[in-house]
Amino acid sequence: MSAASQAKRSMPDIEVIVFERSGHTSYSACGMPYLLKGDVGSEDSLVVRTPEQFAERGIQAKIRHEVVDIDLGSGSVKVEDLASGTRSEVAFDELVVATGSYPTMLDVPGADAGGVFALRDLDSGIALHRHLMGTKPQRAVIIGAGYIGVEVADAFIARGIDTTIVEASGHAMGTFDEDLGETITGILVSSGVKVELGEAVDGIEVSSGSAVSVVAGSKTFPADVVVMAVGSKPNVALAERAGIEIGQTGAIKVDDHMRTSHAGVWAAGDCTEQKSIVTQQPVSIHLGTVANKMGRIAGINIGGGDVAFPGVAGTALSRFGDTEFARTGIDAAAAEAFPIAHLSVVSRSRTKASYYPGSEPIHTKLLFENPSGRLLGAQIVGGTGSGKRIDIFAMAIWNRMRVQDMLYADLAYHPSVSGVWDPALIAVRKAAEMIEA
Amino acid sequence: MSAASQAKRSMPDIEVIVFERSGHTSYSACGMPYLLKGDVGSEDSLVVRTPEQFAERGIQAKIRHEVVDIDLGSGSVKVEDLASGTRSEVAFDELVVATGSYPTMLDVPGADAGGVFALRDLDSGIALHRHLMGTKPQRAVIIGAGYIGVEVADAFIARGIDTTIVEASGHAMGTFDEDLGETITGILVSSGVKVELGEAVDGIEVSSGSAVSVVAGSKTFPADVVVMAVGSKPNVALAERAGIEIGQTGAIKVDDHMRTSHAGVWAAGDCTEQKSIVTQQPVSIHLGTVANKMGRIAGINIGGGDVAFPGVAGTALSRFGDTEFARTGIDAAAAEAFPIAHLSVVSRSRTKASYYPGSEPIHTKLLFENPSGRLLGAQIVGGTGSGKRIDIFAMAIWNRMRVQDMLYADLAYHPSVSGVWDPALIAVRKAAEMIEA
Repeated sequence: MSAASQAKRSMPDIEVIVFERSGHTSYSACGMPYLLKGDVGSEDSLVVRTPEQFAERGIQAKIRHEVVDIDLGSGSVKVEDLASGTRSEVAFDELVVATGSYPTMLDVPGADAGGVFALRDLDSGIALHRHLMGTKPQRAVIIGAGYIGVEVADAFIARGIDTTIVEASGHAMGTFDEDLGETITGILVSSGVKVELGEAVDGIEVSSGSAVSVVAGSKTFPADVVVMAVGSKPNVALAERAGIEIGQTGAIKVDDHMRTSHAGVWAAGDCTEQKSIVTQQPVSIHLGTVANKMGRIAGINIGGGDVAFPGVAGTALSRFGDTEFARTGIDAAAAEAFPIAHLSVVSRSRTKASYYPGSEPIHTKLLFENPSGRLLGAQIVGGTGSGKRIDIFAMAIWNRMRVQDMLYADLAYHPSVSGVWDPALIAVRKAAEMIEA
Repeated sequence: MSAASQAKRSMPDIEVIVFERSGHTSYSACGMPYLLKGDVGSEDSLVVRTPEQFAERGIQAKIRHEVVDIDLGSGSVKVEDLASGTRSEVAFDELVVATGSYPTMLDVPGADAGGVFALRDLDSGIALHRHLMGTKPQRAVIIGAGYIGVEVADAFIARGIDTTIVEASGHAMGTFDEDLGETITGILVSSGVKVELGEAVDGIEVSSGSAVSVVAGSKTFPADVVVMAVGSKPNVALAERAGIEIGQTGAIKVDDHMRTSHAGVWAAGDCTEQKSIVTQQPVSIHLGTVANKMGRIAGINIGGGDVAFPGVAGTALSRFGDTEFARTGIDAAAAEAFPIAHLSVVSRSRTKASYYPGSEPIHTKLLFENPSGRLLGAQIVGGTGSGKRIDIFAMAIWNRMRVQDMLYADLAYHPSVSGVWDPALIAVRKAAEMIEA
């Protein structure tokens, strides 16, 4: 929808048609956990713009219409109206593939049973919300301890549901390093979430068509509701079938203008690759911020503009209760894999002056190149107000700064937001001392 | 004390003596308004480190000792023990002048009456605190609507004191542009503070030795307590008398290593000039963050190091109740004066996704060079969580970024901290459109 809006804005006379398989066009996927939690009052409030609102802007947004085939030769798509089952051909001059990503579903027995949910789109979020409201589950198992798993656990705990997270890997929040993952795990556990790490799910036990427990190795976790949150994959089947080039990450390959391998065909969002500004290598990151930017750039360029996407730092923020966690750049595993010689340091500080009410701990981890000192990544876990501070490091990485370049950065201070030495400055000082040593 | 600590750390064998006129060494001046407000429980909690704690680190911190003369020829200072009145000579190999700044006192009748206060140091903050606790004033007049005036008004309103701010200039918060100053004034007024702009104080009426009202032109504002908060000046009398060069701003001139005009004499903190990283011109900014950095650099260099201070962006943050305001870089007046051809834009956004609980308005003003687009300054006024976002712009200015370079910066998003397009990105987009137009 970003691409559609931007293209229409650039060239008001063009006809823009959007086909969307689900029942909604523009909505906040990231708000769904807070619908489940009860913080967001109504399902409708997550809808940013309805098809009717797009129509007012001259964009035809056809929901419950699935594009089942792309014919690059004739320049047309085959579309199925999911309500009626009728199919039609629609010709295009320019095509944008924005098929997004889909949640990975474990291929285990019982995965398709009643009471097993995944957050794929707003429809699926609404379905889970109605299930919670209707069945009032007592016990939940969440499979996967990533962003969605942790945010859904936050919602479930707030609803008084006995919640267990079962995670196959050895640590929670896999986009964070293991040490900060452990910090996050500690916070989950102290809030009453049971966290089972290193437990690969073998199956879901079903009774009368509904899930009753999750089995992992020798353990069985009873569940009235199961949420599968084990990551997402770019949705490229349609593009791949049409012969559009897929990159090494498994997402659609695009240049920095969002052009695919085929002239006149563009792609943007979770279904496409991005370039890491740290490693300059292709990555496949599924975040609304990135998707919106790519869509906007595709729309500008379709409309005759000339805008290049600079790439991604991979900045992301999540929360559990009042604990915020955020990351940017690459993590230790990525640095090892690339490889880049690196060092890291964790510093502990406070979100406010220690004497100021509400001061909470903040943990800052920096990953930096050795011996140059170039900042490669940062991770923060802390109390309210911690998360957005990651933007300091995102901006530093954006500008290829070294930790030594940041020692005297002029950051804002007031006792309500930091000590006189900002937590970021304390962290870069520790890092710089390691470089010098 | 930063310089003392750092020098001692670098060269453990040197003798470090600190003379301090007041009764405290290392304390949080910025915390004083929150002592007055009642948010900070005790006077002692603002003390960061006592003379005894410094003594444990091998630093002799002599409080209530005033250096009354510097003799550069002999390399010694004349010190008066304020308790006994005895004077002594103390020789030095290296001297650091860190005499700070002092609040400007209006030269009007009654300025020295009882019940008239200024926040000069912790002693003065404690005196005002005890006055509030002891006399329970009903009506207060604060002279000056800058950081201290506004923060003290916040404290007074929280205590139920009928509070009037009398400001000589036409707008509150003079380090912000007039439009954002008006936004801040609106927030003060809606919280019950009476704000009298364009009113120069002519005198303070006194009865039985105590202030009873403040007179400005034809208006009289009754007051049981008066706080003078009309800015601060670098405290350079001692240095000037000794023949140390004073810069064009009226503060001590130092190079980027904190050396004064005289070999072996260093200066740091509010009493010294800094270099603006925007204009490369000398400025005299009185902020704890800057002072601490300069002190640290002086200490490192005295200890044999070689560290240059890169200069200041002038980043500062303050708050009134839950409203946060922050600024970095230069404001419109400074851009006019320099001069730099510039444009500015104000964008309105929200601190959280609109559907997320606690979402509040945030105003972001950007000032940027025309036609290059280089960011020159930013100002933010908004609800909780707004202020620290100024660091995004501080980092941008630090890196000499243009607004066009920031359009796709990878900033953190979660519905609890922004919309999917960060307020900063919305602001730079508006700015960039002006450059392109």
